[in-house]
Amino acid sequence: MTDPAAASSPPRHHDLLDPLGANGRAEQIVGDDAWLGALVAAEAALSKALVAAGIAPEWMLGVADSFSASGAIDLPSIAVAGRAGGNPVIPLVTQLRALADSGHAGAAQYVHVGATSQDIVDTAAMLVAAHTLESVTADLRLVGSALADLARTHRRTPQAGRTLGQHASPTTFGFVVAGWLSAVCSLIERAVDVRQSVPASLAGAVGTLGAMTQAVAEQSPAHPEQMSATAATPTLTPATGTAEIVDAIVADFAATLGLARPALSWHTNRLPIVEVGSMLAAATGVMGSIASQVAELCRTEIQELGEGLGAGEGGSSAMPHKRNPVGAVLILAAAKQTPGLLSTLYGGLIAEDQRAIGGWHAEWQTLRQLERLTLESVSATVPLIENLHVDSVRMRSNLDLTHGLLYSERVSSVLARQLGRDRAFELVREASAAVSASDPLEAVLDSRLAANGFSADSELRAHIQAAFDPDLIIDHTATGIDRALEHFDALCAGRLAGERADEQEEYLL
Amino acid sequence: MTDPAAASSPPRHHDLLDPLGANGRAEQIVGDDAWLGALVAAEAALSKALVAAGIAPEWMLGVADSFSASGAIDLPSIAVAGRAGGNPVIPLVTQLRALADSGHAGAAQYVHVGATSQDIVDTAAMLVAAHTLESVTADLRLVGSALADLARTHRRTPQAGRTLGQHASPTTFGFVVAGWLSAVCSLIERAVDVRQSVPASLAGAVGTLGAMTQAVAEQSPAHPEQMSATAATPTLTPATGTAEIVDAIVADFAATLGLARPALSWHTNRLPIVEVGSMLAAATGVMGSIASQVAELCRTEIQELGEGLGAGEGGSSAMPHKRNPVGAVLILAAAKQTPGLLSTLYGGLIAEDQRAIGGWHAEWQTLRQLERLTLESVSATVPLIENLHVDSVRMRSNLDLTHGLLYSERVSSVLARQLGRDRAFELVREASAAVSASDPLEAVLDSRLAANGFSADSELRAHIQAAFDPDLIIDHTATGIDRALEHFDALCAGRLAGERADEQEEYLL
Amino acid sequence: MTDPAAASSPPRHHDLLDPLGANGRAEQIVGDDAWLGALVAAEAALSKALVAAGIAPEWMLGVADSFSASGAIDLPSIAVAGRAGGNPVIPLVTQLRALADSGHAGAAQYVHVGATSQDIVDTAAMLVAAHTLESVTADLRLVGSALADLARTHRRTPQAGRTLGQHASPTTFGFVVAGWLSAVCSLIERAVDVRQSVPASLAGAVGTLGAMTQAVAEQSPAHPEQMSATAATPTLTPATGTAEIVDAIVADFAATLGLARPALSWHTNRLPIVEVGSMLAAATGVMGSIASQVAELCRTEIQELGEGLGAGEGGSSAMPHKRNPVGAVLILAAAKQTPGLLSTLYGGLIAEDQRAIGGWHAEWQTLRQLERLTLESVSATVPLIENLHVDSVRMRSNLDLTHGLLYSERVSSVLARQLGRDRAFELVREASAAVSASDPLEAVLDSRLAANGFSADSELRAHIQAAFDPDLIIDHTATGIDRALEHFDALCAGRLAGERADEQEEYLL
Amino acid sequence: MTDPAAASSPPRHHDLLDPLGANGRAEQIVGDDAWLGALVAAEAALSKALVAAGIAPEWMLGVADSFSASGAIDLPSIAVAGRAGGNPVIPLVTQLRALADSGHAGAAQYVHVGATSQDIVDTAAMLVAAHTLESVTADLRLVGSALADLARTHRRTPQAGRTLGQHASPTTFGFVVAGWLSAVCSLIERAVDVRQSVPASLAGAVGTLGAMTQAVAEQSPAHPEQMSATAATPTLTPATGTAEIVDAIVADFAATLGLARPALSWHTNRLPIVEVGSMLAAATGVMGSIASQVAELCRTEIQELGEGLGAGEGGSSAMPHKRNPVGAVLILAAAKQTPGLLSTLYGGLIAEDQRAIGGWHAEWQTLRQLERLTLESVSATVPLIENLHVDSVRMRSNLDLTHGLLYSERVSSVLARQLGRDRAFELVREASAAVSASDPLEAVLDSRLAANGFSADSELRAHIQAAFDPDLIIDHTATGIDRALEHFDALCAGRLAGERADEQEEYLL
Repeated sequence: MTDPAAASSPPRHHDLLDPLGANGRAEQIVGDDAWLGALVAAEAALSKALVAAGIAPEWMLGVADSFSASGAIDLPSIAVAGRAGGNPVIPLVTQLRALADSGHAGAAQYVHVGATSQDIVDTAAMLVAAHTLESVTADLRLVGSALADLARTHRRTPQAGRTLGQHASPTTFGFVVAGWLSAVCSLIERAVDVRQSVPASLAGAVGTLGAMTQAVAEQSPAHPEQMSATAATPTLTPATGTAEIVDAIVADFAATLGLARPALSWHTNRLPIVEVGSMLAAATGVMGSIASQVAELCRTEIQELGEGLGAGEGGSSAMPHKRNPVGAVLILAAAKQTPGLLSTLYGGLIAEDQRAIGGWHAEWQTLRQLERLTLESVSATVPLIENLHVDSVRMRSNLDLTHGLLYSERVSSVLARQLGRDRAFELVREASAAVSASDPLEAVLDSRLAANGFSADSELRAHIQAAFDPDLIIDHTATGIDRALEHFDALCAGRLAGERADEQEEYLL
Repeated sequence: MTDPAAASSPPRHHDLLDPLGANGRAEQIVGDDAWLGALVAAEAALSKALVAAGIAPEWMLGVADSFSASGAIDLPSIAVAGRAGGNPVIPLVTQLRALADSGHAGAAQYVHVGATSQDIVDTAAMLVAAHTLESVTADLRLVGSALADLARTHRRTPQAGRTLGQHASPTTFGFVVAGWLSAVCSLIERAVDVRQSVPASLAGAVGTLGAMTQAVAEQSPAHPEQMSATAATPTLTPATGTAEIVDAIVADFAATLGLARPALSWHTNRLPIVEVGSMLAAATGVMGSIASQVAELCRTEIQELGEGLGAGEGGSSAMPHKRNPVGAVLILAAAKQTPGLLSTLYGGLIAEDQRAIGGWHAEWQTLRQLERLTLESVSATVPLIENLHVDSVRMRSNLDLTHGLLYSERVSSVLARQLGRDRAFELVREASAAVSASDPLEAVLDSRLAANGFSADSELRAHIQAAFDPDLIIDHTATGIDRALEHFDALCAGRLAGERADEQEEYLL
Repeated sequence: MTDPAAASSPPRHHDLLDPLGANGRAEQIVGDDAWLGALVAAEAALSKALVAAGIAPEWMLGVADSFSASGAIDLPSIAVAGRAGGNPVIPLVTQLRALADSGHAGAAQYVHVGATSQDIVDTAAMLVAAHTLESVTADLRLVGSALADLARTHRRTPQAGRTLGQHASPTTFGFVVAGWLSAVCSLIERAVDVRQSVPASLAGAVGTLGAMTQAVAEQSPAHPEQMSATAATPTLTPATGTAEIVDAIVADFAATLGLARPALSWHTNRLPIVEVGSMLAAATGVMGSIASQVAELCRTEIQELGEGLGAGEGGSSAMPHKRNPVGAVLILAAAKQTPGLLSTLYGGLIAEDQRAIGGWHAEWQTLRQLERLTLESVSATVPLIENLHVDSVRMRSNLDLTHGLLYSERVSSVLARQLGRDRAFELVREASAAVSASDPLEAVLDSRLAANGFSADSELRAHIQAAFDPDLIIDHTATGIDRALEHFDALCAGRLAGERADEQEEYLL
Repeated sequence: MTDPAAASSPPRHHDLLDPLGANGRAEQIVGDDAWLGALVAAEAALSKALVAAGIAPEWMLGVADSFSASGAIDLPSIAVAGRAGGNPVIPLVTQLRALADSGHAGAAQYVHVGATSQDIVDTAAMLVAAHTLESVTADLRLVGSALADLARTHRRTPQAGRTLGQHASPTTFGFVVAGWLSAVCSLIERAVDVRQSVPASLAGAVGTLGAMTQAVAEQSPAHPEQMSATAATPTLTPATGTAEIVDAIVADFAATLGLARPALSWHTNRLPIVEVGSMLAAATGVMGSIASQVAELCRTEIQELGEGLGAGEGGSSAMPHKRNPVGAVLILAAAKQTPGLLSTLYGGLIAEDQRAIGGWHAEWQTLRQLERLTLESVSATVPLIENLHVDSVRMRSNLDLTHGLLYSERVSSVLARQLGRDRAFELVREASAAVSASDPLEAVLDSRLAANGFSADSELRAHIQAAFDPDLIIDHTATGIDRALEHFDALCAGRLAGERADEQEEYLL
């Protein structure tokens, strides 16, 4: 699949309320044009599967190919006409049948055979989801790559570790970034798994493939000569039973579209939808978490990070000096919108009979918006990380803000050897309360130990001193950084089993 | 406010995945054009408020009026440029200032004075919300009117009352509809209340109106002759203090836009957003509940209701006979999407410092989608109710499906007089288990009473018989129906206190 | 209503995962004991309303009073037995009827007359909700009072205003707190409104009050001498019609419980539930917002605030020095849980027929958890604010962190008088980029102005200097602070119209 | 792991608002006792891992074993004391250290070494989650088994397939059930996968294992003789480096608890939480969907299914005849609560720094409630399916309700061979509108064909007749049923790769 966004002069997306989508990339993947392309691709694949199974004549292949010709279908009229049936498939099929007949008399016969509207909409939804997952995976790799660089660069950059907003204990910035990378690795693995399992839908009105079976039963003996073997249906012969041919049509349909074969009708088994949705929401959530941490570390009082803003970026309409971390803020905004959308998709698991009464229709816009936000937020995280300004000097100086308190865990661990853990903890706790700029923890401890008649031997004294060495953490975090880097490298070494090659997606008009 | 949707040949909305929005009405109220109009209206109102306060010269009124000229602003370029600052206001102000200067040299000076981006976006959001609430209120009245007609028509139409899907006890269809009407009345009252409280925002960068105060302090003594009294600022004189003038500007700004005056900055107090959102989600939820009940009563096995479908509506791509309750289904689909959206808005209550880091930005698309779904679902409920087919014959015959069990509550109440409540309940419970088509409850009870040596006197016998009279419920439900009708009539008698007249909305381009 | 939590030695609540509920206060209001009390109170009120209407004999008043005797009802067995019918009312009624008969032979006849399980559960839910709202309102007043004190104390404490985490423009801490107070005022007003509208439920199996009507019709002529006039039913006479008596019973039932009279059955009109839920979620959200801002201002690098921790509070199991803002963190945690719960309640608006199939049952635990979180978070905000450590020295010194950039909005406003707004904005923007500790904005501007051959006259120079005066903001924010204080004072001046006196709640066992 | 619920006389759970939990089973797995057990198990495993690594003396193994002695820990006091630190670990460690020292002087030294509160809480959460997933998986197998039986029994039971509530086309009940089974198979596979990946947490204050590393570095040379080889740490020798020993401790800790080894600290990488949550919400959603379909098919007008109610089940407090599908309703109620809870967990992905400010704390009760609802709903689905009453006679007679319309898809497919698809579809559509009880579709078509001068030959006539044969569907659906059964059988053939043997869980007190 070539990257559609890389095409020359992509159409810009105009949505006043979606600044993150301004480059039009997400819209190209999930917008109405992409959806129409996917709907048409589904119908074309169905017609072709009929040819392969000997149900439709060979010339139908050419007719099916013509469906995706630019301008063949009038999108606006379908969108409006979709109101009557509750979805766009009925008017689409009407247009496709007219188009088919204009290409070859009688071709309309071989359009939408055995399918129901939900098959086509669900298959199109999965095509769009597959494309979304592929684009998200590619962008996650770029995010991972940028994070890996950052982790390598800053593996020896000590930083204050913070819990509940308070300086807690030292870490390195490389280790913090390795934690982000670790999450990104999990996302890539999950995205590839989910992409592989994204199913086509072809089950007919009530999921039984009844009409298809009937069509095959009536047709098959009449046209044995039409059967053509394809990769997906290698064994069809005139003697093949009806059920096998129907199976082969479903398999062929799915294979043509690059989707998984459904085990059974999933018209009211919506696990495929929540599986896709969960993956996307997880990705956006992790991007939001990274963005949130970046934005916090950009705070005026912290300033350990700065967003690498281009000219004119990050400004304010009121304050000339502002350099807002605008990328981080918009990514975070996307992440704040996804849990609610995901909950709607999970609500759709409760589905009535053989087609849900409203729950199915509630998925369409919800999944699309979730896809859009994920595409946008993951894509925006690439430059956020690639251009991140890291102020390691500031990180180093911030370590001293607590006058040694940052090392309280360590030093109490050292003292525990001689005082016992509880007494040591208590001593450090009390000493901590007396710390000030002029009286750092190390000094307070010294005098308290002396006051308690406790004379530290030179070895202990050395250990205490060492506990206050910020660089000690560099060794401690090296293993973790390496582990994350190795994990990511392994992911990159070859394409993961499930990833598709970058072949041209046929369904994009 | 004239109904923008009533304008000649409204532009159709093309969204393949939003059949309910096909008529373009919602898009006209909440789409990008409407939003741009609202943003521009906010800036124009601000410039005008400066004139009224003597901060800007009188000719600025004409300049401000020119802002809303068709085509004055290039929406697509603003949408794209909004990425840099994270919202559309910075590029909008740039365009407006150029436009202003082209109208009157130096006019740019009086654009966006004292405001911050969030003021303009929030004010525009509230203008769009206000328009949405007004449109929703108008449509709720139409829904209410249709329901009132239906309740009147069917006040004497007995129907099986159902609990947990089981026939329970009789009701009338008029009473059921009166229940729907009662909910609609509550919604109208709430919509009017919320509409009244929708505030403008004008608070400056950190909510203090600091820049505005400074601008006024420097300007006011210089131009006392410019001050013009308006309804909102009747008492400004050269002696008026700075704080009072700033107050007057805020009041004038809000009044011009038909919005409430904010008590204080609400940049990080998002109660106005959740108040609007709660109202909209409640309305969509009630519409969804009505639609869900309609769809159930349309079930093939129940068929007490049918959706009044136009030609070509309700069809299927696979089954020629289908008459799907497609309006009800799409309304229900809208209602299933709103709770998740509302949860995102409530999440936004948690806001950082003087401007939220992402939470604010997460509101925009979420609120717009909630508004869109509400506009569409309430609007679609009007024809759903107006054209509803009610099969009162079927309602009557369905009453007999349980062979008398529907009257078990009543008859056990009658028997309780003589047997005591517990014994009567138990007798009827046991009798119920023996009921069949050939042996209805009345007959089973007769024989059981006799078998127990209990000879019912003629009065009791008459009471038992009466308990099985379906028409008895007509009297019982009359009071409730009347109460709902009276409530709605009272709401309609005059416009509610808070409703605005239908004057032209200035912000619509 | 006396505060039940103020009773001597309140039972502690044991929930390992709910530290905020450790004092047991919320559990006392919404726990199973409270719920059982409310269920029993509903049944007692119903029996009493029958007496008032002459349907039950006078002695039934005493019997009904006995329902709430300590230990009269066996809660655990009801909880377990509730599985069979899907709710606790059936086994409760069985116990109550046995209890009634043991008190007065035949009294069981007058228990649960005309009611259905949902009436009792919904009424109990509203009693618990009413109590919750009252407790929340009382605590919101305490929060407001603490905030008002804080705003008064710090009305002259300048602080850096922050947007998107960046220093933006000056404010005062008093003004920031006034903003919180303003939100709390809105919450109090809304809580009182919602409390007033909380309805009882009494509608019978399918909402028609059919069984009640029948019971009244049969009973009323027989016992005219029993009729007793109460405040709610002053006009009942032997001549009163059945419908009027039924109406009076509903009114009496609601009045006894301190709840609003329902207009109609709300069995499948769940607006009352979402109205309560919305209010509670809004309150928790605002508390969370305040807590979030407190936690941020407690950050080691900011340290403008500190949580007033008691001995042993805020500690860590690993780091002896930690003083975590643990109250703020737990309040924020509560606020993060409420939007999802609220979305479940809104989902319940979609309700089937005359009783929802699952949606009703899904409300119980959801609303209780929402109530619990609100009670706990509002209550915990009182000491958070009352004991807040404000470091105004640090606030003052943080103002200088940006070397003057904080005043960029102001100074560009000053320069705009002479340079025009655009040129001034651009000049300050460029100057801002060159600012450093040794070269603050004021100095950079000076040299840039000179370099551009722009000699500022002494008046302008004075204005520029003034723009960098942090105290200037004190005047600017005074009005806002006063407005918020006045609003709160007005709320406190008298009890709001709708607030109930603190009389003993009868339903608490 | 033996089933804790199988122990003799399990304690009943008393929660008035949770009828589904009445048997106490879920509470036994996720209640406070289970949580305390899990917290204690985590601390014990940590102490033991120190022994294995030679950091703690051998006798510490016995001390650690004593932690889980019944009554050793005072849960209520921990729950209350947890308020001060914001979680229960600090008071727990205090109690454990006292307990340790009472068992062996100096043992307190080896408690909670190198860990932070979040390690212990997260590990405990994952132990409880693991147990939940195992119990859910076991119950899903039982559900699957019951569904497989049902599918086998009803593979030849025709039923009306319904879309949007309308009869659409025939199916078999066996095929419908096979669809449910297919979803259950997916859930089992996912549950096993997720169970395998559930990680322990051991990372120290800021995720670096800094304190642990320090403890090891100081301790290891001193006690080489203490090292004991375990499965997880087979290669530790006195020469082993500090980092390797720390690694081994983490591995040993996780292995002892039956949890996965974390790659890196996941203190602010909450993907493990949402992975568990997503699986649970999916399971509850599918149970809800099955329950919802059961409840619909129980409707008085449909009555194809009936819930197999025990004595006293399904009753009403008002209507003696009621047989409510109460199990289905309660399962559905659980499913309606999960999406909102899941959204809260996804919100927690956004986490600050090295420990989230509130987001972490918001997970505890949310995940527990999600676990509770899943345990209860899956468990309740077992008897729902096992005892389901299937009325195949009613299914058969309901097929005729539309007088042949159910076969419209089929018959139009037959006619298409001669008339072309469009003309056939149109003919059947028009004929459908004229169908009545006395004039079924077959008859109407006959006369219309004749009227159009179209004389069907005997072969076509036979095909038309065959299209109206309800049994035709039996063959069509056989393949699908077989596929689902085979899938389930394969899952049952052996335990899935990732399933654990039923060994005793140590952490259960």
